[in-house]
Amino acid sequence: MVHDLLLAAAYVSDAQYSRNVPFETSPQTIRLYYFYNHWTMRAATNFFIFVDLSLALFEEPALFPLPFLATSIAEVLCLTAFFGRLIHFAKVTPQTVFWKDTKNICIMVTIVLTLVDLIVYGSLEAINIHSVRWSRALRPVFLINFPESRQIRRAFRSIRNTLPDILYVFLLFMFNMLIFSLMALKLFGDRGLKTVEGSPYFTNILEIIFDLYVLVTTANSPDVMMPAYDFNRWYSLYFITYIIINTYIFMSVFLAVVYNNYRKHLKNEIRKLVYLKHYKMVEAFNLLKVKVGAEFVVKEAEWRRLTKVVVPDISSSHLELLLRISDEGQKGHVDKTNFLRLADLLNIQVITISVRRHPLEAWMPRVYKSSVSLFIQKVVQHRIFVWIYDAIILLNAIFIALDEKNPFISYAEWLFLSLYVIEILLKLYTYEPKAYFGRKQFWNWFDTLIIIAALVATVANATIQSARKYNSQQILDIVLVLRILRLLRVIISIQRFRVIVTTLINIGPTILTFGGLVLVVYYTFAIIGMEVFQGKVRFFDPNVTTPDALVCGNPALKDAAFARDRYCKNNFNDLAASFVVLIELTVVNQWHIIAEGFSLVTHPTAKLYFIFFHIVVVILIVNIFIAFILEAFFVAY
Amino acid sequence: MVHDLLLAAAYVSDAQYSRNVPFETSPQTIRLYYFYNHWTMRAATNFFIFVDLSLALFEEPALFPLPFLATSIAEVLCLTAFFGRLIHFAKVTPQTVFWKDTKNICIMVTIVLTLVDLIVYGSLEAINIHSVRWSRALRPVFLINFPESRQIRRAFRSIRNTLPDILYVFLLFMFNMLIFSLMALKLFGDRGLKTVEGSPYFTNILEIIFDLYVLVTTANSPDVMMPAYDFNRWYSLYFITYIIINTYIFMSVFLAVVYNNYRKHLKNEIRKLVYLKHYKMVEAFNLLKVKVGAEFVVKEAEWRRLTKVVVPDISSSHLELLLRISDEGQKGHVDKTNFLRLADLLNIQVITISVRRHPLEAWMPRVYKSSVSLFIQKVVQHRIFVWIYDAIILLNAIFIALDEKNPFISYAEWLFLSLYVIEILLKLYTYEPKAYFGRKQFWNWFDTLIIIAALVATVANATIQSARKYNSQQILDIVLVLRILRLLRVIISIQRFRVIVTTLINIGPTILTFGGLVLVVYYTFAIIGMEVFQGKVRFFDPNVTTPDALVCGNPALKDAAFARDRYCKNNFNDLAASFVVLIELTVVNQWHIIAEGFSLVTHPTAKLYFIFFHIVVVILIVNIFIAFILEAFFVAY
Ligand code: NA
Repeated sequence: MVHDLLLAAAYVSDAQYSRNVPFETSPQTIRLYYFYNHWTMRAATNFFIFVDLSLALFEEPALFPLPFLATSIAEVLCLTAFFGRLIHFAKVTPQTVFWKDTKNICIMVTIVLTLVDLIVYGSLEAINIHSVRWSRALRPVFLINFPESRQIRRAFRSIRNTLPDILYVFLLFMFNMLIFSLMALKLFGDRGLKTVEGSPYFTNILEIIFDLYVLVTTANSPDVMMPAYDFNRWYSLYFITYIIINTYIFMSVFLAVVYNNYRKHLKNEIRKLVYLKHYKMVEAFNLLKVKVGAEFVVKEAEWRRLTKVVVPDISSSHLELLLRISDEGQKGHVDKTNFLRLADLLNIQVITISVRRHPLEAWMPRVYKSSVSLFIQKVVQHRIFVWIYDAIILLNAIFIALDEKNPFISYAEWLFLSLYVIEILLKLYTYEPKAYFGRKQFWNWFDTLIIIAALVATVANATIQSARKYNSQQILDIVLVLRILRLLRVIISIQRFRVIVTTLINIGPTILTFGGLVLVVYYTFAIIGMEVFQGKVRFFDPNVTTPDALVCGNPALKDAAFARDRYCKNNFNDLAASFVVLIELTVVNQWHIIAEGFSLVTHPTAKLYFIFFHIVVVILIVNIFIAFILEAFFVAY
Repeated sequence: MVHDLLLAAAYVSDAQYSRNVPFETSPQTIRLYYFYNHWTMRAATNFFIFVDLSLALFEEPALFPLPFLATSIAEVLCLTAFFGRLIHFAKVTPQTVFWKDTKNICIMVTIVLTLVDLIVYGSLEAINIHSVRWSRALRPVFLINFPESRQIRRAFRSIRNTLPDILYVFLLFMFNMLIFSLMALKLFGDRGLKTVEGSPYFTNILEIIFDLYVLVTTANSPDVMMPAYDFNRWYSLYFITYIIINTYIFMSVFLAVVYNNYRKHLKNEIRKLVYLKHYKMVEAFNLLKVKVGAEFVVKEAEWRRLTKVVVPDISSSHLELLLRISDEGQKGHVDKTNFLRLADLLNIQVITISVRRHPLEAWMPRVYKSSVSLFIQKVVQHRIFVWIYDAIILLNAIFIALDEKNPFISYAEWLFLSLYVIEILLKLYTYEPKAYFGRKQFWNWFDTLIIIAALVATVANATIQSARKYNSQQILDIVLVLRILRLLRVIISIQRFRVIVTTLINIGPTILTFGGLVLVVYYTFAIIGMEVFQGKVRFFDPNVTTPDALVCGNPALKDAAFARDRYCKNNFNDLAASFVVLIELTVVNQWHIIAEGFSLVTHPTAKLYFIFFHIVVVILIVNIFIAFILEAFFVAY
């Protein structure tokens, strides 16, 4: 009986969290499965994934260099943890299922490959031969393939499903680009035209193809047109046609195809999830059902025990509420239809709004209920109170914009801070604190935290300042940012703004999923970029103007736009710098200058790295992101 | 009776073309209404609208200068025509309706304003005072407000309906931008940092706001970040946060809001159209109905007469087909339900596919049916024939890419041309010509026209070349473009490509509506731009390198990126040049350089012109265009 209960609770819990893990049903395995799903085990796995990914910060080219021995020991530790987690999973799930799941195979293969790489690299290093730590690019495999990363995997599946459809559009787009390249070669190649930099204009077909690909991203518009346009104004028609077809129509079609697939895929996933949930709940029901009259039901006592196993820390009032919903007729048992709803019911957040008395009222009722106190409470609750504080915030904004070297203005800052603190104290005096800081009271939390943070930072800064007679730059920056973030409070007063922001906050978790997806792709590209481009471009202090500093330490960049625009710090010399470069490439503008720079210091084929990045990140991932925002806003608005 | 028939036909015709013009029903007015809708009258109106808009090419600053007298006479002629058209409309429509319609008021006010402007400008010109022809910016009013431009008006309505929703998002976006600007001023303003050009970095709040607006469009990324990033790598977080929020999230939200409104609006418009159509058809039915048995119907003879009035050139087979559909039971009359469908039935294109014999078969059956002839036909119909010609096209592409100075390659061109002509002749020999060049046979038409055009152009070029011993540049360019466009034929062989292209061609007409919408907006902006910026920036031949030429003839542009990038030809010195600049601004990249340039030669507030253009064209119109492509692809795919 206890075994059945545990098994049923595992099913319900799986349904609640939409887990899709087939597990063996022997008593011992179920306990193992509970342990597998325990938050400590999941946290440990996430911790090791985090450590494993972070290693790139400490390995050559390092942001914080550590010896190879230290990072390799850490990596072996992580691999051991991953292997342990996998073994644990293998004990829980049936053998045949385990070996059929590509996720598990992926993890195992990656562990073995990483070990091989570590051994080979370490041995070569021992005899002073420097080789490439290629297995580092595989690390995101762990992030993707552990069952916890369901969301990221779903996003990847969505991309994979889009590929066949997008492929033909992409081929047609490429074909069209080639036709236009050929036309450009024939129309402009023999004219003897020169670009602004004085190099020959449209004479080499490969360079033309690259230039026209860049034009699709608009990054070299209108520069790429100017020589031809200066020569003859009619030639602008060529470029305008090209931009209309390839930038406007084709890029919109890419978005349309991605969006269309995203919607289809989303529908399928939701259908699958619903089916799975239903199936698991039926299994749980079948374990616990007893026959009452003509139908099978679950007895109330059994139902209580089950729910307590699934959610050990459920409050008794919550439990009673769920029971009242599930056993509408108060018959002492839950029928099948109501039982199946349990997983969904558990996912509904219950907010207990109890009309509690203010603690001060309980503590000193006479004072709190006095006419002065009541008047204060009435004032605070009045609209004008909000308006006055909005005016104060606007005044504050003006003071911030003014020069703060003026001591008067610097004192005003303390005045504003105290006004804000007084506001929060007044609100806490008027409203019941537990209700004011309720779970869903996002804006109250935001308000209070910003003020407290600003207060702490300002006090800290003042202390340091008076103690050491100088400003701490970091703290001063934080104080500044917090002081300005306070102005965001104006949003609260405007209903329409609050609706938009709430919508954005609600889709926040999914935006984080995209963060994970982007992290995975960035990480792989960053590792490859670091292996290929590290040290080729160096950053010198902006004040240094030696010839070497002007070409980012690489003579190949002489006369290159990369050096002229002072992009030396856009390099792949450590993980953080690489990520910044990849973000710049995602933003797209000037990406061709960066691509050109890195191809000058290595080889022209290096441009393929940047083109491939553009296709993967901008055409696929950014479009999926836009599709997601569109869909989220259609549902919310 | 004849009057009823004419009136009913007018209703059906209105329903067929979705016209929504209330008209008086007296016999005389109906004839006037027929005349109003006659294609010659519509063509004449469009012609005068075209002439009126084109005048900007001939007025100062002119592409082809004409004296003020000539252009003003032409303009008065156009205004007379517009006024005549309006009077005609007033005669047709009831007085009360006429004066309530803002479209008519708009046209009248614009006519009066234009006349006033012409008189004032002309008088001042007569006493040698140069003023501004401001009424020219109003000319698109005629294009929008005549009943013919239903599509463009619908697009404008769609934009107008979006405005309230987008306004709040835009305000929040601006507010957010201001907060970030303030932060930038405080964080970076006192650091003494310098931009690449050596100017102070982030010290003036207005310049910061402009720079951050430009960053939303990504046009100055990563340059705007580099000084801060070079100073301290942590400052990149400020810019990354800004880009994620304002470029990615807010711009996607703009698209979402526009798209959402577009869909809602589209649904409403369609519902209204359907209702209107139904209403008009019921009116027509009520005019012609007679009672047969228990129900009202329209007699077959009456129905035939009506259809012939609505579509005078209908073929008898088409008429019979429609009748057979409308009078299913062959009862000699059409009932109400079937009658109401007439407008839609008339809009369905009927393609008569008659299995005709090949004309050659009729002419010389023995030869055409001989075994050699049959073999040829079989070969042409075979897949391999298509493949062989695809191979020939690819070979042709390689030859085009090779150097054409080589005489052998130049002769090869003639070989390819003849091969293509032979292909078409063979196809015409095999397939029945009328079927091959059917209405819906887009690809056959495309194929043949490209080949014939290339043949004509090549022959023309060769003739000129041998006669005058030199190449005509224009014809040579056309020959080149046509020669390369021929390669597009490969698309025909690949099914998936054909599907995509067919979808794009089907949405072509609506893309043209957007063309009209963009034309209207561009025209107004171009006229304003010409009045404000004409002559401020001048273009010199690229070979001239006098100091004056290097600053586009304006010393204010010394050290400006505008002059350094050689953007001198991006000016507002005539309508064509203005349109090219506006297209470049629509593409967005480098728009800040252009805005900066024109504000340097006039006044810093000139930037507002460019920011306003960005908001109207990129945030509103381009997003509606994307929304439209998305919707079209969802329906088609
Ligand atoms: Na750009």
